[in-house]
Amino acid sequence: MSEYIAPLEKLIEQFRSLKGVGKKTATRLAFSILDFSDEQVQHFADAILDAKRSIVSCRQCFNISDTDLCRVCADEKRDPSILCVVEDAKAVMAFEKVKDYQGLYHVLHGAISPMDGIGPEQLKIKELVDRVAAGGVTEVILATNPTIEGETTAMYISKLLKPFAVKVSRLAYGVPVGGELEYADEVTLFRAMEGRRNMESK
Amino acid sequence: MSEYIAPLEKLIEQFRSLKGVGKKTATRLAFSILDFSDEQVQHFADAILDAKRSIVSCRQCFNISDTDLCRVCADEKRDPSILCVVEDAKAVMAFEKVKDYQGLYHVLHGAISPMDGIGPEQLKIKELVDRVAAGGVTEVILATNPTIEGETTAMYISKLLKPFAVKVSRLAYGVPVGGELEYADEVTLFRAMEGRRNMESK
Repeated sequence: MSEYIAPLEKLIEQFRSLKGVGKKTATRLAFSILDFSDEQVQHFADAILDAKRSIVSCRQCFNISDTDLCRVCADEKRDPSILCVVEDAKAVMAFEKVKDYQGLYHVLHGAISPMDGIGPEQLKIKELVDRVAAGGVTEVILATNPTIEGETTAMYISKLLKPFAVKVSRLAYGVPVGGELEYADEVTLFRAMEGRRNMESK
Repeated sequence: MSEYIAPLEKLIEQFRSLKGVGKKTATRLAFSILDFSDEQVQHFADAILDAKRSIVSCRQCFNISDTDLCRVCADEKRDPSILCVVEDAKAVMAFEKVKDYQGLYHVLHGAISPMDGIGPEQLKIKELVDRVAAGGVTEVILATNPTIEGETTAMYISKLLKPFAVKVSRLAYGVPVGGELEYADEVTLFRAMEGRRNMESK
């Protein structure tokens, strides 16, 4: 006899399939659903189906979008000569929150990871090279995650882009602003030290 | 302009309506859904609708069930002379995990809480008294949560049951004060059950 009745067990299992959700959380979320009204439950299910149905990849940068061209690519005020290359749409959102970056993006949909069987051909790397080859791009900022996979991917792309007359840059490493030094890991501290800049006092 | 595209924003909002889910978690869960295949998303939505549609209240103890009588009430090996009174179905699950308790349950669907406008008439208290009045019950274990509301409810019920020839007991304070039963570990629940004491209403 399973722990819960079948429909509840099934719902818990579904919640567990979400990223970062363990058994306790899944159970709590499933019980939340049971407390919903019929109408609320219908809205919830509709939102899930609707999101999956209506969210597509931007045909230019592969960011998530509900239109053919995403909001960033469609914005004429953005500078199309700078491309920020990220692993996923979440990174785009993170940069967009900063509101400082005025260029466009290119979403790779992952990073090279031989351990997980992910090679360059599964990512939108060819599409990136095509965009650069088409001309008009002067700088490519490699903003893949500061992980081994992200580093490998950045390295791989920078080699591919060498034949083109574009500046290729990588995000600066350092201690996070607002953080406390005692909590920074050693590699981060080493990188922060290595990348130190002269301070100009006026 | 909202932070995310509309269908994603809507999905995040839906996840936020689940208990204990804040904005960051809701966003992470919503992005998980986008990574699902079409089939997975359909299964997820189906599980939600199906759980709500097929889970009902047991007609005897008001525990959640997918049948008219819940699994516990329908089990002929259980002792119908002992009733364990709990606030919600989650507490039933918690006791069932211990596998020690052999009586039946009565789920109140909440606790008396004047602050939240919840009085005895909104709970399954009348139904409990009716069950006891119908005869055959020799002991009622008040296993409401060890909170002010749970204590108040236990006290209230113990007074209502005074006219009947039943032993009324309360869980021992093995359960941590201020906590919720569903998060108590099995040993704690076992000790609490074992150390239950008679409840004297003054």
